[in-house]
Amino acid sequence: MTVVGVIGGGQLARMMIGPAIELGLELRVLAETDNSSARDRATSVGDYHDLETVMNFARDVDVVSFDHEHVPTDIVRELENAGIAVHPGSAALAVAQDKIVMRQRLTALGHPVPEWAVALSPDDVTEFLSTHGGRAVAKLPRGGYDGKGVAVISDPADVTAWLDAGPVLLEELVEFSRELAQLVARRPQGETAAWPVVETTQVNGVCAEVILPAPASETRVAADAAELGRAIAEGLGVTGVLAIELFETPDGRLLINELAMRPHNSGHVTIEGSVTSQFEQHLRAITDVPLGSTESRHPWAVMVNVFGAMDTKRYARMDSLSGVKVHNYGKDARAGRKVGHVTATGNDAAGTASRARAVAEIFSTDI
Amino acid sequence: MTVVGVIGGGQLARMMIGPAIELGLELRVLAETDNSSARDRATSVGDYHDLETVMNFARDVDVVSFDHEHVPTDIVRELENAGIAVHPGSAALAVAQDKIVMRQRLTALGHPVPEWAVALSPDDVTEFLSTHGGRAVAKLPRGGYDGKGVAVISDPADVTAWLDAGPVLLEELVEFSRELAQLVARRPQGETAAWPVVETTQVNGVCAEVILPAPASETRVAADAAELGRAIAEGLGVTGVLAIELFETPDGRLLINELAMRPHNSGHVTIEGSVTSQFEQHLRAITDVPLGSTESRHPWAVMVNVFGAMDTKRYARMDSLSGVKVHNYGKDARAGRKVGHVTATGNDAAGTASRARAVAEIFSTDI
Repeated sequence: MTVVGVIGGGQLARMMIGPAIELGLELRVLAETDNSSARDRATSVGDYHDLETVMNFARDVDVVSFDHEHVPTDIVRELENAGIAVHPGSAALAVAQDKIVMRQRLTALGHPVPEWAVALSPDDVTEFLSTHGGRAVAKLPRGGYDGKGVAVISDPADVTAWLDAGPVLLEELVEFSRELAQLVARRPQGETAAWPVVETTQVNGVCAEVILPAPASETRVAADAAELGRAIAEGLGVTGVLAIELFETPDGRLLINELAMRPHNSGHVTIEGSVTSQFEQHLRAITDVPLGSTESRHPWAVMVNVFGAMDTKRYARMDSLSGVKVHNYGKDARAGRKVGHVTATGNDAAGTASRARAVAEIFSTDI
Repeated sequence: MTVVGVIGGGQLARMMIGPAIELGLELRVLAETDNSSARDRATSVGDYHDLETVMNFARDVDVVSFDHEHVPTDIVRELENAGIAVHPGSAALAVAQDKIVMRQRLTALGHPVPEWAVALSPDDVTEFLSTHGGRAVAKLPRGGYDGKGVAVISDPADVTAWLDAGPVLLEELVEFSRELAQLVARRPQGETAAWPVVETTQVNGVCAEVILPAPASETRVAADAAELGRAIAEGLGVTGVLAIELFETPDGRLLINELAMRPHNSGHVTIEGSVTSQFEQHLRAITDVPLGSTESRHPWAVMVNVFGAMDTKRYARMDSLSGVKVHNYGKDARAGRKVGHVTATGNDAAGTASRARAVAEIFSTDI
């Protein structure tokens, strides 16, 4: 039996468990804590910054993959040097791990990105602000997620602490009409499969809703996004699932916001919405078997995140919403924490969205 | 977190693992062997005929359910006497455990069954044969499955050994036009949900293919089957999933062949075919939360069993069949063994069936 080792015990690893069982793969997880979201398959608990911990975990698996981008590149390279298959590999992963590297590589490949610069000093910030209408998005190159490590700034003083720690990425504040996400999977031998582009809604920098497919994207936008997704996956040599967060501008251009080289919140909607979910596809891609169909099962699928608490006692309130699927990440309650999501499918976008929101609302109150 | 304990570590328990994770339930399995199909959640390994083993397993769970019907009724009653929630309960389960009891109860409830009798002696067999055209179906009351413990007979000598062991159920050999299966779920508080009736094809007494919905069952047959399913679930007080194997006669009547009070091979097709799979629904029913929609996701879904071996290396041959979903039971190869299944979905019955068969064929050869 092929053994897949996932570093990181969050909900992404958790949601690989079911598909791994159906595919007949043995999934093992190196989790951060005893009570991780993926605890059912956490065969090891330890610090992924520690080379020995990671090597001990990886030694007996057939392929290593990730629940997040935070494993140090040096450790990923050590795994590769030891002859262990790692997907995505260190060269690709390095691009997702550092936003400055990502901007450099995407620019070198000729892909559309917001205007950007690297600031090493307050003067660099002042200069960028002066040529971009007095405002910019500042990003820490490493370690950010869900809006953390990202700030809209109008003064060099806003990033003094970040500059003290090292280079800061500055980007133009894009005037976008909406945000999209393109998911694509790629096998080591090169096969790629793109899902239809989705529309995402962020609240306070955190993904709140996703709709599959992105409304009014039947023609050019969808084709452009899919082509961009494949080109980036190939250009960077990504293996596994690649998620590309995009801005759509009022004049119809696509600009790349962020990359993630793993299943992604914008792809949870594929569990019910698509013939092949991002979790199954990631496992197929990293074990290098033919990819599954990315065709949609329904005209519309809408995912809504649940924050705070996911109390199974509240399932009792779902009587009239029997078609909405609930995904519980098995996490302790904490205000603002992503603890689950719900997905509705249907024949009309508005009705599908309102059913998903109604069930998410059941779980999102009273903590 | 609600803890569900399943007795039996076969593929039915295995296929509950994914849905349990998504629902945020903790699933524990009492498996027969270390290498059971459901080994990922086998928190105990032991003999379900041993009261102490079962009690130790069940003590800390919130609800007990089953992968098969073979747990002795006395042990199920002991669990109930100890205040443990068991679904289905001992009174319902007893009906599924003994085919004579089943015939008695269904007859008493007025449901349509083949003509039947209990034979205690060769003379009883001779008499039944003489009034039924010289042939009959003989069944061992307990312990049979997948065609084992069932025989078509024309002479009392065919069942001498069975009669030595105890009563034998005799049934008329029904002239049926096809076999159907009706699945229904029922909660302890009484809510029921029926899936559309499916058509099943048996080969040598073993389920080979299932099509959802049963072709040409749009009107009366489907309504009759669903009504029968609900009536039996209510009449017997079943909790969880109930599967009813049916004969459809050339004149359009339905006769009850067998009952199973758990997820069933005829319901695997609901994983992709239905908004709510039988495995998720069983978990919802036994934990007494509102049932999910049993609506179909696609016009047609066809499941084909895989026998013998399920070698993941053969996934490499699936290039042109990317929409067919593979389910691997993680079992060692053995000729004739159910080791997995595949399901295709689509807009036409014939094309969907042929795609499913083509993928099943990949795995069914060369052992």
